[in-house]
Amino acid sequence: MIKIIVDCFGGDHCPEAPVQGALAALASNPELYIILTGDEGILKQQLAGKDYDAARLEIVHAPQVIGCDEKPTDVIRLKRDSSMMKGIMMLRDRDDIAALVSTGSTGALVTGALVRIGRIPGIIRPAFCPLLPTMNGGIVGICDSGANVEVTSAHLRQFAIMSSLYLENVYGVSKPKVALLNVGKEAEKGDEVRQEAYKLLRETPSVNFVGNMESRDLLSGSYDVVVADGFSGNVLVKTTEGTALELLKKLKTEIYSRWLYKLGALFMKKMFKDLKAFMNYQNYGGSVLLGLSKTVVKGHGSSKAVAVEKCIEQAYKMEVSKLSGKIEAEIAKYEHYEE
Amino acid sequence: MIKIIVDCFGGDHCPEAPVQGALAALASNPELYIILTGDEGILKQQLAGKDYDAARLEIVHAPQVIGCDEKPTDVIRLKRDSSMMKGIMMLRDRDDIAALVSTGSTGALVTGALVRIGRIPGIIRPAFCPLLPTMNGGIVGICDSGANVEVTSAHLRQFAIMSSLYLENVYGVSKPKVALLNVGKEAEKGDEVRQEAYKLLRETPSVNFVGNMESRDLLSGSYDVVVADGFSGNVLVKTTEGTALELLKKLKTEIYSRWLYKLGALFMKKMFKDLKAFMNYQNYGGSVLLGLSKTVVKGHGSSKAVAVEKCIEQAYKMEVSKLSGKIEAEIAKYEHYEE
Repeated sequence: MIKIIVDCFGGDHCPEAPVQGALAALASNPELYIILTGDEGILKQQLAGKDYDAARLEIVHAPQVIGCDEKPTDVIRLKRDSSMMKGIMMLRDRDDIAALVSTGSTGALVTGALVRIGRIPGIIRPAFCPLLPTMNGGIVGICDSGANVEVTSAHLRQFAIMSSLYLENVYGVSKPKVALLNVGKEAEKGDEVRQEAYKLLRETPSVNFVGNMESRDLLSGSYDVVVADGFSGNVLVKTTEGTALELLKKLKTEIYSRWLYKLGALFMKKMFKDLKAFMNYQNYGGSVLLGLSKTVVKGHGSSKAVAVEKCIEQAYKMEVSKLSGKIEAEIAKYEHYEE
Repeated sequence: MIKIIVDCFGGDHCPEAPVQGALAALASNPELYIILTGDEGILKQQLAGKDYDAARLEIVHAPQVIGCDEKPTDVIRLKRDSSMMKGIMMLRDRDDIAALVSTGSTGALVTGALVRIGRIPGIIRPAFCPLLPTMNGGIVGICDSGANVEVTSAHLRQFAIMSSLYLENVYGVSKPKVALLNVGKEAEKGDEVRQEAYKLLRETPSVNFVGNMESRDLLSGSYDVVVADGFSGNVLVKTTEGTALELLKKLKTEIYSRWLYKLGALFMKKMFKDLKAFMNYQNYGGSVLLGLSKTVVKGHGSSKAVAVEKCIEQAYKMEVSKLSGKIEAEIAKYEHYEE
């Protein structure tokens, strides 16, 4: 049995989405045990009348609410009874609990997890690694996508090692092709950090480094992992999501603008539905925070039940694959950098 | 008469695209005089049999060729007789010439222009400002998109002033809404440079600063100008272009996969054509290099004739609007920073 905490008060659709996602995950995976954190009264209401295995579901009361504008450091200090911080503290303190899934504030989650849970020995900085679908039907991981706005080349190398192991062990990608996000393909492109990282990655046997990637090639399917600082990685992921969504919206508006187009679209109903599903990030799970000594998965703030379910599955797979131990073993092969 | 140099040996479709683009621009604008730089023999062959006003077209022989892997500094020193460097030197030396349009190497163009042509007084760093179409039928400028991989907050403020004047004077956008690219909307997001730039921009009366922008909102139409360091700005622009292209490709593949979809698509032929034109960056001109004492427009390496024609039009409009003088006057209002 693997125990996973689901923070039920954080995203745009809470607590419905986390609760329903948790129930769906429970139903499909008999090896799962779920702990919901949040206001007990409200959670009990949500569960009333639902069909689930009560022996594998538990509620832990955490009535405090985190405001949108609260500073992460304040959340850690003052909101110990919030659904997120309670989850983080339980994850730290209890050996029988494997992971935490949250759709709450990114800043609070990163800071809370870093300060309270801590890192895998040898890891300088944990980093996010969300996944996007590629045009050949695969996936690509982007690491980091927002946990560290400033990085060194040593950080980037660790991101490469961690995300490569993640894709290999959790998604079965053999020898993931790892690229460095840059403004051009040539080794001397970018700033000093990028130039150094290029050299370091070439000298890292654990990583199948294939060189620099220009951002326009992200979805090509030529890469399994792209390593970036958290600022430009964030731009990379959000621009891709934003462009895809805006284009879909535009396509819809155009179709509805003329009866002839609407007629044509009738023949293509399934295609448009598939395309929408393909581009819906909710179907690709959350952004795992690699490098923590325990598993934390951050779901999109707008996550619906299906996205939360995918996040729980991700957390489960990370635990089953013993990813943390593998990261620790691999990182230990390289010199240790001071922060 | 406004004289513009067109570098004919640089892009993927040279010399055909630059030559044909130049002829199209000449035909549509009687106020234009064009100087083609490149191998005279080849250019004469290209022009043979074409119908154009020979009194407004001139060839300047520049036989040297710039290789893909040549360092910009070597190009400046060793390739003075290349079509690009010859163009840059003529632009510098002759008062009667207004602008240069090139689809050649970005690095060589930036370095060559910076070293040989120089900056508008007061400008610390010139910056690229390409344009993208927004979903409400407008455009958005991104400044910088690759000329400066590292920046300070003072650079970002100048990018904001320059690109704002560009959108206002060349594209008639009144009081352009200027945003700062960041990983979140709140003032305290991002690194120190971003936090400082946020404060500086708020205190800059020449700029209608509307706050931070998350990259997923680029195409929303809510912003006219987005200010960024050249690294993340480059990621922003290329990810948008790349995602749009990949999705169009996917749409096409899907349509061709079933006869029913192909049938439906017949009704929507015009819509798909319009959509393709809308997303084709070739229709939005090039990336102007703002802050130089003379006008330089960089066309995409893959520019076809229509894209080169748009670049020439852009250069013409920049000259007619006396943009450089306006930038100089506006920058002079602020304290001068040392580089």
